[in-house]
Amino acid sequence: MSFLQLQPQWVIGDGPYSDIVLSSRVRLARNVMEVPFPRQATVEQLRQLVKEVEEIKNENKKLTHLKLLKFADLPLLERKILVEKHLISFQHGQNEEGALLLEDNGAVSVMINEEDHLRIQCILSGLQLEEALEQADKVDDALTFQLKLAYDDDFGYLTCCPTNVGTGLRASVMLHLPALKIIGRLEPILRSITKVGLTVRGTYGEGSQVYGNIFQISNQVTLGRNEQEIVDNIQRVTMQIVEHEKNARDILLKNGKIKLKDLAGRAYGILSNASLLSIEEAMRLLSDLRLGVDNNLLEDIQNKLLNDLLISIHPAHLSKLYDKDLAEGEQDIYRAILLREKLRGRN
Amino acid sequence: MSFLQLQPQWVIGDGPYSDIVLSSRVRLARNVMEVPFPRQATVEQLRQLVKEVEEIKNENKKLTHLKLLKFADLPLLERKILVEKHLISFQHGQNEEGALLLEDNGAVSVMINEEDHLRIQCILSGLQLEEALEQADKVDDALTFQLKLAYDDDFGYLTCCPTNVGTGLRASVMLHLPALKIIGRLEPILRSITKVGLTVRGTYGEGSQVYGNIFQISNQVTLGRNEQEIVDNIQRVTMQIVEHEKNARDILLKNGKIKLKDLAGRAYGILSNASLLSIEEAMRLLSDLRLGVDNNLLEDIQNKLLNDLLISIHPAHLSKLYDKDLAEGEQDIYRAILLREKLRGRN
Repeated sequence: MSFLQLQPQWVIGDGPYSDIVLSSRVRLARNVMEVPFPRQATVEQLRQLVKEVEEIKNENKKLTHLKLLKFADLPLLERKILVEKHLISFQHGQNEEGALLLEDNGAVSVMINEEDHLRIQCILSGLQLEEALEQADKVDDALTFQLKLAYDDDFGYLTCCPTNVGTGLRASVMLHLPALKIIGRLEPILRSITKVGLTVRGTYGEGSQVYGNIFQISNQVTLGRNEQEIVDNIQRVTMQIVEHEKNARDILLKNGKIKLKDLAGRAYGILSNASLLSIEEAMRLLSDLRLGVDNNLLEDIQNKLLNDLLISIHPAHLSKLYDKDLAEGEQDIYRAILLREKLRGRN
Repeated sequence: MSFLQLQPQWVIGDGPYSDIVLSSRVRLARNVMEVPFPRQATVEQLRQLVKEVEEIKNENKKLTHLKLLKFADLPLLERKILVEKHLISFQHGQNEEGALLLEDNGAVSVMINEEDHLRIQCILSGLQLEEALEQADKVDDALTFQLKLAYDDDFGYLTCCPTNVGTGLRASVMLHLPALKIIGRLEPILRSITKVGLTVRGTYGEGSQVYGNIFQISNQVTLGRNEQEIVDNIQRVTMQIVEHEKNARDILLKNGKIKLKDLAGRAYGILSNASLLSIEEAMRLLSDLRLGVDNNLLEDIQNKLLNDLLISIHPAHLSKLYDKDLAEGEQDIYRAILLREKLRGRN
């Protein structure tokens, strides 16, 4: 399967607490000694790094499940698709010397020549930070074994941005918190998270916009804590939020199952019958629909489909699928067509 | 078919301009000399009148297609159903001595012992005021031929309420004007109507509320004009409004067919997937849906079904259909069930 069709592993939706924790992500930032950080490096140095990584990959059996994608070989549209899958950053995709190692099941990937030389990430379904860290660590070990990394005995891994110095680890979870939003308890809970050294932001949506009640919680600091402490902290906080969201869902069910069913049914009705759907509205309706599906109020709709739609309703995915350059207005038309096809066909 | 299942003739939706003019109604008020108006009459006098009408009906071949329903024999729920079909008034249904003659195709009916002794009405699909007047006149002639009517050579027919004195004729049309509403041209047009001696009000909805962009236009005065003049006036004004609405629909289509399709599709999606629907919202969505159907933007939905729903989503119809006393909150549940069944099943 081409990486264009391949969805990230988490989309399958089979992980622990995956009704609330859509995915867990771990990312390790690594840089090679004696090569300037990508922003300062020459084209030649960047190419040399990609070449080196390619050689390591080809020679190491533990890395054969990774495929190398060089951005210079990819049309911009295909790079945008990787951005929409959250496999690379927008800036990374703009870099002609950028590259990506991508696992064939879509869980592990390595950004090459992003802000740091290597950013090894693993994204898994549900709350699986430990497992994600383990998988990322394995690739880290195999990939960087022969490389002389920029490492300082006092500071730890050195990175382009000071916030990543130390473990170079950023761990995050993507949470769907519709019930907390509906009962009006979301804001105080999110505020309290920032007090324990974690950051909250919308996962989808531009800048600070939050689409579809989906939030990403990640560690702010990588220095002064070891990997385990960072992961444990997010894990613990996530479990608390999961409990809050579960309680909120119970409250909503007690207040009237039919109201929740109505909300989800309307969302399904609009998503599968509208002719124009903005991404913001689609995300909002998918959130309503998911809340109903999570509570077994709608039949025949799988979380896997809803997860897939969170990604495939984005512009580059639509352009690729319908083989058209889509102006902004047209995106809403094709998004509606996709949602209608996917939800009615349930594929 | 019982009168409970029987829908008024106009529901079939085959009349001229029936995409905009849902129905045309003519009503003739007649009173019998030497019997006080129903509000002043004794129970005995009211019963005597019903008896007399029944005898006339039984002896006249021209009236055999009419069935007599005496309210004393009807449970309150069944009278409410007649009110919801706009065949009788609410006050009429409360009167134990009230009765109704109802044609088997649902076009002609005669309220007995409403405000006046007899109110003969004919409601037809589309713009058919002339035809409706003709059919009402026929029943009037056959029914009142042997009765000595309250008639004054100067004033004409005498009626309980002075506004009906003269021809005793009230003619009206029921118009669906969604496009004028959307483009913001409805208010000035409705205001101008009142300047030519006509009254505008919502057809459905309590008091002055207008549900589903459906309006009734009727003559205010019956005195000083003959039947033909009254009917011609409404006919002429209606044709003008029809033109305005058609132009408004053209404007909407030019501004973007897909926006109209989107509006109608969303309405369909909500109506066929919601679990709670108030009558006001249902009427609003049916209006959106109808606008799409009128413009051939949705397949497989007939105006007949939409007309039927305008009536059958009302509380007494729901109670009868689902054989339940429905509290107000429950009505919204069963209304949603009905709409889902009817729109998905398309029956």
